[in-house]
Amino acid sequence: MPKKYISSLKTGEVVEDVFLVLKKEVKETREKKPYLNLQLADKTGSLEARKWDAAPHLCNSFHKDAFIKIKGVVETFNNTLQIRVNEISPVAEECVQMSDFVPSTEKDVSAMMSELRQIIKTIRDPYLSKLLDAFFTEESFCKVFSTAPAATQYHHAYLGGLLEHILSVARLAVSFSNLYPMIKRDLLLTGVILHDIGKTRELSYERSFHYTDEGQLTGHLISGVLMIYEKAQKIDGFPSDLLNVLFHLILSHHGEYEWGSPVKPGTPEAIALHHLDNLDAKVYAATKAITEHKDTSSSWTDYVKMFERRLYKK
Amino acid sequence: MPKKYISSLKTGEVVEDVFLVLKKEVKETREKKPYLNLQLADKTGSLEARKWDAAPHLCNSFHKDAFIKIKGVVETFNNTLQIRVNEISPVAEECVQMSDFVPSTEKDVSAMMSELRQIIKTIRDPYLSKLLDAFFTEESFCKVFSTAPAATQYHHAYLGGLLEHILSVARLAVSFSNLYPMIKRDLLLTGVILHDIGKTRELSYERSFHYTDEGQLTGHLISGVLMIYEKAQKIDGFPSDLLNVLFHLILSHHGEYEWGSPVKPGTPEAIALHHLDNLDAKVYAATKAITEHKDTSSSWTDYVKMFERRLYKK
Amino acid sequence: MPKKYISSLKTGEVVEDVFLVLKKEVKETREKKPYLNLQLADKTGSLEARKWDAAPHLCNSFHKDAFIKIKGVVETFNNTLQIRVNEISPVAEECVQMSDFVPSTEKDVSAMMSELRQIIKTIRDPYLSKLLDAFFTEESFCKVFSTAPAATQYHHAYLGGLLEHILSVARLAVSFSNLYPMIKRDLLLTGVILHDIGKTRELSYERSFHYTDEGQLTGHLISGVLMIYEKAQKIDGFPSDLLNVLFHLILSHHGEYEWGSPVKPGTPEAIALHHLDNLDAKVYAATKAITEHKDTSSSWTDYVKMFERRLYKK
Amino acid sequence: MPKKYISSLKTGEVVEDVFLVLKKEVKETREKKPYLNLQLADKTGSLEARKWDAAPHLCNSFHKDAFIKIKGVVETFNNTLQIRVNEISPVAEECVQMSDFVPSTEKDVSAMMSELRQIIKTIRDPYLSKLLDAFFTEESFCKVFSTAPAATQYHHAYLGGLLEHILSVARLAVSFSNLYPMIKRDLLLTGVILHDIGKTRELSYERSFHYTDEGQLTGHLISGVLMIYEKAQKIDGFPSDLLNVLFHLILSHHGEYEWGSPVKPGTPEAIALHHLDNLDAKVYAATKAITEHKDTSSSWTDYVKMFERRLYKK
Amino acid sequence: MPKKYISSLKTGEVVEDVFLVLKKEVKETREKKPYLNLQLADKTGSLEARKWDAAPHLCNSFHKDAFIKIKGVVETFNNTLQIRVNEISPVAEECVQMSDFVPSTEKDVSAMMSELRQIIKTIRDPYLSKLLDAFFTEESFCKVFSTAPAATQYHHAYLGGLLEHILSVARLAVSFSNLYPMIKRDLLLTGVILHDIGKTRELSYERSFHYTDEGQLTGHLISGVLMIYEKAQKIDGFPSDLLNVLFHLILSHHGEYEWGSPVKPGTPEAIALHHLDNLDAKVYAATKAITEHKDTSSSWTDYVKMFERRLYKK
Amino acid sequence: MPKKYISSLKTGEVVEDVFLVLKKEVKETREKKPYLNLQLADKTGSLEARKWDAAPHLCNSFHKDAFIKIKGVVETFNNTLQIRVNEISPVAEECVQMSDFVPSTEKDVSAMMSELRQIIKTIRDPYLSKLLDAFFTEESFCKVFSTAPAATQYHHAYLGGLLEHILSVARLAVSFSNLYPMIKRDLLLTGVILHDIGKTRELSYERSFHYTDEGQLTGHLISGVLMIYEKAQKIDGFPSDLLNVLFHLILSHHGEYEWGSPVKPGTPEAIALHHLDNLDAKVYAATKAITEHKDTSSSWTDYVKMFERRLYKK
Repeated sequence: MPKKYISSLKTGEVVEDVFLVLKKEVKETREKKPYLNLQLADKTGSLEARKWDAAPHLCNSFHKDAFIKIKGVVETFNNTLQIRVNEISPVAEECVQMSDFVPSTEKDVSAMMSELRQIIKTIRDPYLSKLLDAFFTEESFCKVFSTAPAATQYHHAYLGGLLEHILSVARLAVSFSNLYPMIKRDLLLTGVILHDIGKTRELSYERSFHYTDEGQLTGHLISGVLMIYEKAQKIDGFPSDLLNVLFHLILSHHGEYEWGSPVKPGTPEAIALHHLDNLDAKVYAATKAITEHKDTSSSWTDYVKMFERRLYKK
Repeated sequence: MPKKYISSLKTGEVVEDVFLVLKKEVKETREKKPYLNLQLADKTGSLEARKWDAAPHLCNSFHKDAFIKIKGVVETFNNTLQIRVNEISPVAEECVQMSDFVPSTEKDVSAMMSELRQIIKTIRDPYLSKLLDAFFTEESFCKVFSTAPAATQYHHAYLGGLLEHILSVARLAVSFSNLYPMIKRDLLLTGVILHDIGKTRELSYERSFHYTDEGQLTGHLISGVLMIYEKAQKIDGFPSDLLNVLFHLILSHHGEYEWGSPVKPGTPEAIALHHLDNLDAKVYAATKAITEHKDTSSSWTDYVKMFERRLYKK
Repeated sequence: MPKKYISSLKTGEVVEDVFLVLKKEVKETREKKPYLNLQLADKTGSLEARKWDAAPHLCNSFHKDAFIKIKGVVETFNNTLQIRVNEISPVAEECVQMSDFVPSTEKDVSAMMSELRQIIKTIRDPYLSKLLDAFFTEESFCKVFSTAPAATQYHHAYLGGLLEHILSVARLAVSFSNLYPMIKRDLLLTGVILHDIGKTRELSYERSFHYTDEGQLTGHLISGVLMIYEKAQKIDGFPSDLLNVLFHLILSHHGEYEWGSPVKPGTPEAIALHHLDNLDAKVYAATKAITEHKDTSSSWTDYVKMFERRLYKK
Repeated sequence: MPKKYISSLKTGEVVEDVFLVLKKEVKETREKKPYLNLQLADKTGSLEARKWDAAPHLCNSFHKDAFIKIKGVVETFNNTLQIRVNEISPVAEECVQMSDFVPSTEKDVSAMMSELRQIIKTIRDPYLSKLLDAFFTEESFCKVFSTAPAATQYHHAYLGGLLEHILSVARLAVSFSNLYPMIKRDLLLTGVILHDIGKTRELSYERSFHYTDEGQLTGHLISGVLMIYEKAQKIDGFPSDLLNVLFHLILSHHGEYEWGSPVKPGTPEAIALHHLDNLDAKVYAATKAITEHKDTSSSWTDYVKMFERRLYKK
Repeated sequence: MPKKYISSLKTGEVVEDVFLVLKKEVKETREKKPYLNLQLADKTGSLEARKWDAAPHLCNSFHKDAFIKIKGVVETFNNTLQIRVNEISPVAEECVQMSDFVPSTEKDVSAMMSELRQIIKTIRDPYLSKLLDAFFTEESFCKVFSTAPAATQYHHAYLGGLLEHILSVARLAVSFSNLYPMIKRDLLLTGVILHDIGKTRELSYERSFHYTDEGQLTGHLISGVLMIYEKAQKIDGFPSDLLNVLFHLILSHHGEYEWGSPVKPGTPEAIALHHLDNLDAKVYAATKAITEHKDTSSSWTDYVKMFERRLYKK
Repeated sequence: MPKKYISSLKTGEVVEDVFLVLKKEVKETREKKPYLNLQLADKTGSLEARKWDAAPHLCNSFHKDAFIKIKGVVETFNNTLQIRVNEISPVAEECVQMSDFVPSTEKDVSAMMSELRQIIKTIRDPYLSKLLDAFFTEESFCKVFSTAPAATQYHHAYLGGLLEHILSVARLAVSFSNLYPMIKRDLLLTGVILHDIGKTRELSYERSFHYTDEGQLTGHLISGVLMIYEKAQKIDGFPSDLLNVLFHLILSHHGEYEWGSPVKPGTPEAIALHHLDNLDAKVYAATKAITEHKDTSSSWTDYVKMFERRLYKK
């Protein structure tokens, strides 16, 4: 039986499927009987579930962040769907397809990687070209790079989101370079492609997305610089000026001190990178906020922190 | 004899040409004889000039902002060129080619207008299309629009600069719309083309660029809205929703309250317009600051206020 | 039987009256029986109410924002009044006196309008006088103007609040003009009277107060300017300077960019308008926060966001 | 011969009068002869003056901030008046009428003091009334209070300026209290009258205005509080609550931390005081900037720091 | 039986002890029987408690902030300890040891006072020495000073916290003065010791910590200045310069206007005091946030407002 | 003849010595004869100098930033010393003692290095100890480290200033660690000693102090991290956690984003380092501003940007 995804469940439907446990609470009825209040998730969303008469050994048989198989029925309660659970059994992590449970890009990852490699091939500066090759011929890097999310929230917060975002900015940068001939195309494109690689170290994305210790201690800008430094050290004669200018693109791409850049953009390419990155992230986030806002009674989304206002949906 | 431009003068050269008087001071030598200290300009730059033994009637024969014909010799004084003037005669404004004296775009204005009209033709929404036609079939508007500068300083501060900037953003917006299909292309392009039209009323650009009274009292965002309002009133059935959304693009395109927008961008198109406009203006300004910085002994420009830092020239 | 208002209900009292439904939740007892949890309101306040044993058809017989007639008893539960409801029946909107349900000014609206008209009569500038007449002889405008609230919260957030606020500032401005002879009295008074007219379009105030689409897209400053522009177009020879200066008063009256003004006050009258408006709104809001704070055990109100502190009540 | 004031001098006029020396420089002609370059002032303004052939003993016979009598002729040089001095002789401070040299209010000081005392008499609270009497029956205080400027620049920066400003705000506060009956009139008026008394200690205004050491170390808000504390200690039974509330008005009247108030206004009276004070100071400063801007070729003043913009003069 | 402290309770344990009532709610079971939901506290922490079948007279026999003796059993419910209460009896305030219920320093108060007095003895300036003696020989002051908390939250928020903080900064200041000979040691130490004395008036700390009316109206900086002023008035010949400089240290020690200082530090000693005070408070607060964060599954604390980030615990 | 330093010159004195040319201008007398206007410097200060009758070949015989030997006389002109130059001859850089011309620490560099090495020896953590050894046993590093200034202005802006600042903070940190036992002493001291090493790459200090390209592109925080990374890579088993925590100290020591830190301090040691560094730099800068302010007629320095106010000198 193919997995039924949470986003497609309907009231009355019988469920017999595996879910990720996002939250688990043991509560007590007025009659002092324990019951389980769960939040279950898969990659398409999450849902409340309730198991009455939950014996202690059942309650203790699994924990938050584990996978469980349940049998139950979907009910509507106070305008919201929830599952009344009849049976629960733990499921080992090895037996699940992780990609069913963590949100991931809807695009074709290998097609995106191919397109990005095509763009990389157009770079003619020998040192920048070698530097990019050093990354994109390393299998372990490619795997992580094509799997990582771009953020823990706001924009491209799903597996493959980093690649999707980088490719999107890279396409814009190609068009942009054609229209602005004074821009150093090779430098800008290298900056675009590498500007967020520190995120592969900054973000942890097993089951849920959060920051690593390194991420919180030094931030992805500095991690990215260190990753580039390591590769560049191994390229004979990599000009130190070029390396510093590339570091500058990475370090300044947040644009302002208060957004975590230790330097402000000081070259046309750094200025362009900051704005192209911002343009893609902001338009993506706005579109997402509008699409995901389900209340059809209003022409406006709720307040969106990133934009410091509500967005117009019409 | 063809006009000799200031940027091409060399020490020792004899000058017999017309210039705009930017500054005029009557000074006195220790021996109590009056002399004239002038700053002369044409579209390529400005230069100090001095006329010794300046009789009062000569001093009073012209004023600041007038045109004069001079005969004199170019000298080098303390590393700077200046003109030692022998003769001065006033020149009527009708006798000069204004474009010789006010900086203007180096691009072909009618080619730019054609390209912009081509872009306008691709707009399929009937109301937006009619609105743009209402502007771009009005000869007086077209003349002002294709002559105005985009700013008094910083970016595109020369005749035709507004058109150059609008076309540049419009090209970017065309590429951008192709890459981001969720964007309402017609609305974005209309916003791009009209977002700065208030500047045709805000800026005065006879000889030197400054703000009009209207510009300083209400600002070009509101002037733009009023200009659109007037045209839209005459288009039968122009949907009020569409008009408000277009107003929103105009009013919010500075992006933040502190930059003079009374509302923050609240639609994907408004967000995109703000960033595309910013991207073009910032990259243009950075390139200009680098190109115009002549001190070859440093890899860095002077401090540039817009970027809150010095820019790297290599 | 005259309506009993919520603010006057006492424990033990029998209620048989019409209320506005602010919130409606269908909940379930442990025994799986549905019950209704309501929040009922009239112009004097709101109250929780509970209907046990609520059959589905009853639950579906009305919705949020509707009017219902209830029979029930007022009880005290955990120090708070609530109504135990026995019977519910929907009431058509046509059958209710809307003013019983939406908070409105306690002052006499027609007396306030008269006083304002008296002030308008003292304006001697022929154009400003005609402009004000154009508004205040239009019945539909007067109706909306005298009904609108001044805000959705904080100050004068009730029907007639806009008129009350405008009159209050106008009185202050009359006194102020007498004390400061260098002020252009006619201009200041016109600015005071018209500065918030955009709110008649920005705010929707059927049953509850919220912002219209236009309000959120362009803001009331720009709506006000457009309304004045329309009227002024029809007045022969209205001087464009005067119009721009009046626009400036409207646009700058919030005083700072971050409060939504696209220009900062740049004339003595604009500066005075900003401060007079602020003075009235702030003193009103502080008095209201103090009056409405019911906890007598403290000399201080809760934290009031507008003042970024708690207020002293003694 | 009555004193000729600087503001009335005309080119060609013979001068024989006493002036205050604002600046004194000994320079040298190309022929190595010393000459004196002076800036002379009286209460109506200041002017450059030059004395050729200035023997060293003459140069040393007076210093900056001294008074000198000169004989000379007024000349126009490069569009500006200056004095060609022929004779100089020092004048003892005792021999001058100080009020001829320091700018002072054009209003009648004793009439202003009378009006203020009339307002004080209307205060009915016995403690506040006694407190004000303690100040206004003390001759030395009254003298300083009626002589002090309100600031070193910006607003009311002249002898008697403090009194003029206080009276102006007090009149506004009287009107305001009549219109807003919820305001504690006695408290507000006492706050208005005493809010700036610390300036009598903060500012030094012998010849030129500057801050005292105390002013720069603690500020006039704290000085004012200490002055009130001293007086209140001597009033039997002055309620400590009332004293704290009055301190609060003094300390919070700048309105914001960044303007030097250690607390933000937290009572309706404190809020009103802040806004009334601000209203008077801002309208005064704007009017002054417009009146004093002499360049008739522009409708705008220069940039005015206090308003962060240029002001419109029409 | 010695008091059992909340921090040491374990599930299953029988409790028969006195606690402070932090919160008290009367709720109702589905069967309409009232029960009590309490939050009980002593100096080591707080805990939920529940009393079923709570007769109205029992519910009314005590109030929030009172002391009660309970008998009951500790249970674990949903991973949290709570007390199931069987019996409740009110306890008069006179019968409790207040220090059992309000958190207080773990250090030896009289040892700290001794050490501080030793430091005071090293001050050689006769006026500063007399001033400190005036405070520290006054029994009532010493009692309050050694009992007061340093803040209501964040740092040293417990009885004796003020003394602990002052001593800690004083020790640092002694070391610092030894290393920086240009610092006026006596002045700095006096500033350190007196900089927070206004807190003895600003904070109320009976049972729970909150701000007094005086504290909220004028703040502890001004209270401190007034306290010093009173003492200094009684010391013959106290130099007014020295007093102003000392006031300056007190008033400026928050360092910035937005942190409530009406003046910014303007002497080396004021600058040092601000930084030493800050250093002690920040390091203390960080250590406390780390120590008190009990969730061992993360290397990071929760977000800490004071540091605008999470802290690393390893 | 021993060098006469600028700070010791007196009017009338004959000078025959070598100076650094800070500024060089060729001007013209009224009689069209060129003369030289120079600014000459040594490590103790700078002075104007003038050479009349300067033949073109003399003017061209040296340039700005060169060394010249002059013969001349010190004169007083308009209260300021200047040199009337009679003879000029260029001096090769090899022939001068650079330390005579660039300001440098007055302390004993090798004594400071010894003391710092003593402190390093007290570090017991084997990895941090090895890391510090890797730096301080490298001769080239030690030479640069002990020569570099700490800044281009404000604090410790002279040769050896970096070492002096580091030692000063290190001493403070030793005292501090003794008083705060919860601090990880080894980590804090290592952070203190290495926090500014990036400045050895960021600052260029041949003759005058300015930022290098690397300094302006990436900043000294990132340079420091890269320098540590290089050394740590060569230490077997250096724990990556420890390295990240140390990076965190370096990166966060400016304390706030707007001061260029890409992360805010998130450990007690990082918080302490930020405040200790700040304390030393601020107290040093204040003392210097007071010492160097020579105008004895005022108790206050001029406005000091770092402190946003004037400082009190008494």
